[in-house]
Amino acid sequence: MFELYIANKNYSSWSLRPWVLMKALEIPFNEHLMPFEGGTGASHDTFIRFSPSGLVPCLVDDDLAVWDSLAIVEYLAEQHTNVWPSDKSARAWARSATAEMHSGFGALRDECPMNCGVRVALDSVSAKLKADVARLDILWQQGLERFGGPFLAGKRFTAVDAFYAPVAFRVQTFNLSLSDASQAYVEHLLALPAMKAWYQAALEEPWRESMHEADTLKNSTLTADYRAS
Amino acid sequence: MFELYIANKNYSSWSLRPWVLMKALEIPFNEHLMPFEGGTGASHDTFIRFSPSGLVPCLVDDDLAVWDSLAIVEYLAEQHTNVWPSDKSARAWARSATAEMHSGFGALRDECPMNCGVRVALDSVSAKLKADVARLDILWQQGLERFGGPFLAGKRFTAVDAFYAPVAFRVQTFNLSLSDASQAYVEHLLALPAMKAWYQAALEEPWRESMHEADTLKNSTLTADYRAS
Ligand SMILES: N[C@@H](CCC(=O)N[C@@H](CS)C(=O)NCC(=O)O)C(=O)O
Ligand SMILES: N[C@@H](CCC(=O)N[C@@H](CS)C(=O)NCC(=O)O)C(=O)O
Repeated sequence: MFELYIANKNYSSWSLRPWVLMKALEIPFNEHLMPFEGGTGASHDTFIRFSPSGLVPCLVDDDLAVWDSLAIVEYLAEQHTNVWPSDKSARAWARSATAEMHSGFGALRDECPMNCGVRVALDSVSAKLKADVARLDILWQQGLERFGGPFLAGKRFTAVDAFYAPVAFRVQTFNLSLSDASQAYVEHLLALPAMKAWYQAALEEPWRESMHEADTLKNSTLTADYRAS
Repeated sequence: MFELYIANKNYSSWSLRPWVLMKALEIPFNEHLMPFEGGTGASHDTFIRFSPSGLVPCLVDDDLAVWDSLAIVEYLAEQHTNVWPSDKSARAWARSATAEMHSGFGALRDECPMNCGVRVALDSVSAKLKADVARLDILWQQGLERFGGPFLAGKRFTAVDAFYAPVAFRVQTFNLSLSDASQAYVEHLLALPAMKAWYQAALEEPWRESMHEADTLKNSTLTADYRAS
């Protein structure tokens, strides 16, 4: 059985990627949720017990640890042919978009951290954030149009959707404005059973992590908090 | 035939990854070197003609564009079994280390930009850079010990070495201090024919890109410049 180590559902965007992929594709796993123990790096001594980088997510398969969200995806793809689109050209597109997200969109990541349960209004939009959102919007529209939707690379949920799933929560929290096609895609993602289950669990978590909370509000104003106190 | 679009060999660390992989594995391709036209984003209007993200590297295979270094690697791996280690556990390790580099090591990337032809002394070492170098050193030692070297995941050069190849140039330029095992690995990489060819071409390039030059010296002092003219 796969053992998947993740952190707080409310905050951990990297954790969501393999989790939602495995749920959507019905790949069985045991979930191990390890709550953050403070700000960046504070959980290292706990996480290093199962993850060589001291980071989550980490997939453990017997004596083998796969410690990065994209590596987990490719590890699963060796055993499950539905992780990527079956068409070669759709697969190359999906892998490019996935890897672009993995190493890019720095402003979106920094300025709009994932915090599923709250809604905020941005005080201002930096030029870098504007550029990231514009790129995101074009990329999504291209995929949706070229492969016919409703998912980024066609009819099925694949790894590229898993990699943009955290962005759906960011769009919802920060009320980012997108084209109609991209907004419809966000809503389609948020309505998936796996996404609803993640969201519900995030709302019910008892933990408030001060660094993540401060990070969310560093350039925005709270408008709603749907978490169970 | 594959068409590989890259930027300046002296500066473009992401370009080096697929280039050195394809050279080392003797996968034929036509090289298209597109010099940077200024600082970050300045080349977008030129690069977008062949690369959907406006970034290099981009591999074009007939009508298919694969626009990210890690996506290129996986695209090649579908056709060439020697891109990754053949052993399942070595492959999972290599993919994890590769994906960790793709989305991580932010301080190493920011504070020690690739600039092959120069040597500098760091004025100071930030805590984040120290942590990145420590993580790099442990990761490399683990791979070298577990798989027996001289490459990170065993006897053959694979994609994980291609992803850390730019780091070898950064270590050389910024004189970063590593364990003996990691330092030997850096020297092994720098001595590869493909790496020597890239380095020689970088030295001979006529272009000086002011943003990249300033970036190199933002926290360090020039000690040597081996570039022609
Ligand atoms: N490249 C990694 C990044 C993982 C990552 O940064 N994880 C964060 C949580 S979302 C973490 O474990 N942080 C722990 C800490 O900072 O102590 C991946 O894709 O899995
Ligand atoms: N995730 C991409 C990143 C590529 C990237 O950032 N490329 C830089 C050059 S090394 C670029 O094209 N910059 C062009 C510009 O800033 O105008 C990859 O791995 O290929």
